[in-house]
Amino acid sequence: MIATPKFESFPGNIYLKSGAVLQGYDLVYETYGELNSDCSNAVLVCHALNASHHVAGIYEEDEKNIGWWDNLVGPGKPLDTNRFFVIGVNNLGGCHGSTGPSSINPLTGKQWGGSFPFVTVEDWVEVQSRLADRLGIKQFAAVMGGSLGGMQALQWTIDKPEKVKNAIVVAAAPKLSAQNIAFNEVARQAITSDPEFFDGNFYEHGVVPRRGLKIARMIGHITYLSDDAMNKKFGRDLREDILKFSLDIEFQIESYLRYQGDKFADSFDANTYLRITKALDYFDPAASTGGDLAKALAKSQSDYLVVSFTSDWRFSPQRSREIVKALVDNQLNVSYAEIEAPHGHDAFLMDDAVYHNLIRTYFDRIWEGLQ
Amino acid sequence: MIATPKFESFPGNIYLKSGAVLQGYDLVYETYGELNSDCSNAVLVCHALNASHHVAGIYEEDEKNIGWWDNLVGPGKPLDTNRFFVIGVNNLGGCHGSTGPSSINPLTGKQWGGSFPFVTVEDWVEVQSRLADRLGIKQFAAVMGGSLGGMQALQWTIDKPEKVKNAIVVAAAPKLSAQNIAFNEVARQAITSDPEFFDGNFYEHGVVPRRGLKIARMIGHITYLSDDAMNKKFGRDLREDILKFSLDIEFQIESYLRYQGDKFADSFDANTYLRITKALDYFDPAASTGGDLAKALAKSQSDYLVVSFTSDWRFSPQRSREIVKALVDNQLNVSYAEIEAPHGHDAFLMDDAVYHNLIRTYFDRIWEGLQ
Repeated sequence: MIATPKFESFPGNIYLKSGAVLQGYDLVYETYGELNSDCSNAVLVCHALNASHHVAGIYEEDEKNIGWWDNLVGPGKPLDTNRFFVIGVNNLGGCHGSTGPSSINPLTGKQWGGSFPFVTVEDWVEVQSRLADRLGIKQFAAVMGGSLGGMQALQWTIDKPEKVKNAIVVAAAPKLSAQNIAFNEVARQAITSDPEFFDGNFYEHGVVPRRGLKIARMIGHITYLSDDAMNKKFGRDLREDILKFSLDIEFQIESYLRYQGDKFADSFDANTYLRITKALDYFDPAASTGGDLAKALAKSQSDYLVVSFTSDWRFSPQRSREIVKALVDNQLNVSYAEIEAPHGHDAFLMDDAVYHNLIRTYFDRIWEGLQ
Repeated sequence: MIATPKFESFPGNIYLKSGAVLQGYDLVYETYGELNSDCSNAVLVCHALNASHHVAGIYEEDEKNIGWWDNLVGPGKPLDTNRFFVIGVNNLGGCHGSTGPSSINPLTGKQWGGSFPFVTVEDWVEVQSRLADRLGIKQFAAVMGGSLGGMQALQWTIDKPEKVKNAIVVAAAPKLSAQNIAFNEVARQAITSDPEFFDGNFYEHGVVPRRGLKIARMIGHITYLSDDAMNKKFGRDLREDILKFSLDIEFQIESYLRYQGDKFADSFDANTYLRITKALDYFDPAASTGGDLAKALAKSQSDYLVVSFTSDWRFSPQRSREIVKALVDNQLNVSYAEIEAPHGHDAFLMDDAVYHNLIRTYFDRIWEGLQ
């Protein structure tokens, strides 16, 4: 499946949750499949920390650039693009083509850099909703996502209840724990203390805070994998036959993490990373209802599929069960699955048969409802 | 109890596991209580990553500087210095007075810096053993420690089996997991990528890699606490009343971690930190017996107390049980306690009644054996 990025400009003001105002913004997005005549088969896939609008397929000119959820989304796949019209959007503040910190601030004619506003999950829902309006979609057959993407799906059912028929919330949490915030904060400190960060204005110095981004990514990566999965994949395997007793790489896990960190530092924008981790920290839909998540979800009209993975210690099954409880308290239709999976948080991106069959079956049901 | 650091110089060569040779070294240590006439009441307390020889008591000129295990060690305390002669030694490669990276290399007349050799748990046991010889101690009533200190206690019973009557191994593991190594590696990358690290020769530049050390400490700190303990202590509490939507501190947990990181960066040597995390990575007594820990412990003549804490996810109870199994396989006398504690890895430093009573009872038994 060949994917083609599309662009839409939204010239009007948008008032962000932070109080900041953006005088217009652009979105890059991709669509897969065909929108049917009554516009009822649209599915919005929301991305998490490190991903983008490139959900599925490949690019004609870059066949190795495969969409991040390509194992799940495509013709004949669990989210079947022969049936559904699937949309992926690069979130506002991103670094893959939508307006973000590296964009030009129209008021100054220079790149935003450190002055780009902080965005929230609520802001993203609003922005995605405006794109849906533009495309003629009055109600999504489903809004889905994993991790931070799942949080967006949940927020959709709070902010735009009439626009979401089904929400699929995978490997998410109703809010970050202190430990979650702590890991984010260390990553941010690594970036902002990099001498090449320049308060976020590194573009004009022609540098990138690579060292900080690398550390941030390495920390993140550890939290995406389970201890068991890491032990199985790397254990204490040495990169060479003998110990060197130096700061060189001794163990394979060190080599792997450094490689992942370097790759990420070469491709991701530091200001975007800071803003997305902050959006994670800020996400707390129950904050406005005195901590009562059920109350926050009281107006929801959606059906839900909530999925967690046993070995996920970033957003453990316990966190998904908190969401399920709030939904059940509202007498909403909820399916909940706790998938036995060894991979940790990253399981939501893996091609696991039980997991994928579950998603397939759920979309079969949605499809039948549309007929 | 007033503590007074003491010094001993060891002028002869010491051949380290790495193959490096040190032409003599100094040790700083403290002792509490009196050595009895047959030198049978000595207890060696080994320190972990962030601690030192200052195990208990205060300094006459600095009453706020309390020993790191003062709640456990002292007159009338679980390890009762009215009965036992307790020794704390700053490990070789340390930064509290023993020969380490900031010491003068006699061959160059300059500080060692990045050229100080990498040390191992085996090296520390050898160095501690030489100090014991100097003090006239032929056999320790007990060698004990938590975390990396517990690993030293375990290694003692392998390398010097006739010199250890009891080993008390708290919150330890028989070797690091891939995830343990991964966290250490991120900390090291943070330090070595700090532009003020200068390959470990920052002393001569009159700077300190503060940013790297701060990140390293923040990462470490997260792994010392349980998710639950962090949630109870900090949760999502804000530092001020409202969100600021900036890179400023929003949550109390961020403030706490930054403070801990700054404090550590002001007091700890980066080269020492690198070497101690490497010593942790290298620790694997079963490596020389084909992965068979029981075989590695075959010559042990000690009795053991092994202690773990339920909420410790750095070195979980499972890791302690691996040690216990290897000891039981050797038909050694082992007491094992899994303490119900909410604090995570740091529980080994806490004043928990069940835990402290256990240690007290075990030392009562040792004491009776000496009469």
